[in-house]
Amino acid sequence: MSTLILIRHGQSQWNLENRFTGWWDVDLTDKGVAEAIGAGELLAEKGVFPTVAFTSLQTRAIKTLHLALEACGRLWIPETKDWRLNERHYGGLTGLDKQETRDRHGDEQVHVWRRSFDVPPPEMEAGSEYDLSADPRYAGIDVPRTESLKLTIERVLPYWESAIVPQLAAGETVVVAAHGNSLRALVKHLSGISDADITGLEIPTGQPIVYEFDASMTPGERRYLKDT
Amino acid sequence: MSTLILIRHGQSQWNLENRFTGWWDVDLTDKGVAEAIGAGELLAEKGVFPTVAFTSLQTRAIKTLHLALEACGRLWIPETKDWRLNERHYGGLTGLDKQETRDRHGDEQVHVWRRSFDVPPPEMEAGSEYDLSADPRYAGIDVPRTESLKLTIERVLPYWESAIVPQLAAGETVVVAAHGNSLRALVKHLSGISDADITGLEIPTGQPIVYEFDASMTPGERRYLKDT
Repeated sequence: MSTLILIRHGQSQWNLENRFTGWWDVDLTDKGVAEAIGAGELLAEKGVFPTVAFTSLQTRAIKTLHLALEACGRLWIPETKDWRLNERHYGGLTGLDKQETRDRHGDEQVHVWRRSFDVPPPEMEAGSEYDLSADPRYAGIDVPRTESLKLTIERVLPYWESAIVPQLAAGETVVVAAHGNSLRALVKHLSGISDADITGLEIPTGQPIVYEFDASMTPGERRYLKDT
Repeated sequence: MSTLILIRHGQSQWNLENRFTGWWDVDLTDKGVAEAIGAGELLAEKGVFPTVAFTSLQTRAIKTLHLALEACGRLWIPETKDWRLNERHYGGLTGLDKQETRDRHGDEQVHVWRRSFDVPPPEMEAGSEYDLSADPRYAGIDVPRTESLKLTIERVLPYWESAIVPQLAAGETVVVAAHGNSLRALVKHLSGISDADITGLEIPTGQPIVYEFDASMTPGERRYLKDT
């Protein structure tokens, strides 16, 4: 039997400021740091010790991973960072204040961009101050100009299958520290949630979600570690 | 051309308390944290940006790496942790106060243990409170009971050749965040220092040491980044 732990990063500066973030690299707030440490302390308290770690290329997820691992005494486990675990790319909405965007485009349009399964936000304009296509972090990667949740899933799941599943199949206790939408991709897949329902499913920050896999690699029920 | 950056971890709690540490997992002090951040700031200031990272399985080196990478905006680069970059194992001296040890065993004996090239300290006793042979971090690894500098070099250099050299040969800028004696092993090898001289060479904490390699993978002079 093997175990998967999903942790959404703690509060970031732009979560706090209510701005669309996506691939923009925003740091954790003090509250976000405390959430990450709390997640690690909970792992230790429940005796769920990760043996292998995955995270995105974004500071807020990497730091959440490091803080949680340190808090459960597992800073030394192997970790792999990959862009395919990045947050959904918010396209031309990146950097905008969510309320201002609603005021300008209307609640309904913003709701579609945020909660539609397959309608991506407008593309990011070339030369935007938030354009990361020339960032050395993404060298060799075709940085998206925008992503729907569907497009996000289409890059998360192949990575899940090729990189993470083999670790679980080898009996490891895998922790994935990532983002609201890259984790939605995994929860949709593992819990069999419909396209319509997944966009409304909130992944809480800093709350470890656990799946246990049997010998045939079938996942059990998803549960919050804090409730067990 | 490729670049190697060596960083010895900042001050640890037992550096401060003047105790033999070796493989025991001691955290950084606040001063050690500041040294690690300072190392990363210096990398950014000098425009020497790591693209690949290596560190040991010990908290003080891993945290030094993470703090330095964050300070130069490179927290996202791939990192590999390996026990062969660990500090020299101090055997039965682990945990002892250095002054007390001198009082008990005499200055000369302690000098031999600390500064001899090939005389290891007494072996750690089985069941010692500092015995790490059952630590899950070292599962599958034959944890040494003591190490001379010579024995340390004998596990660092094969790792250097098999894991780090290929990254340099591929043109990467490699950072290695490690320990006084695992870094002595590398500096001895790269700068051609004799067995007699290497034991007296101090690697300062938190001061990036840089080697540049030409196309034939011959290292240039070692230099401190702060002086350039």
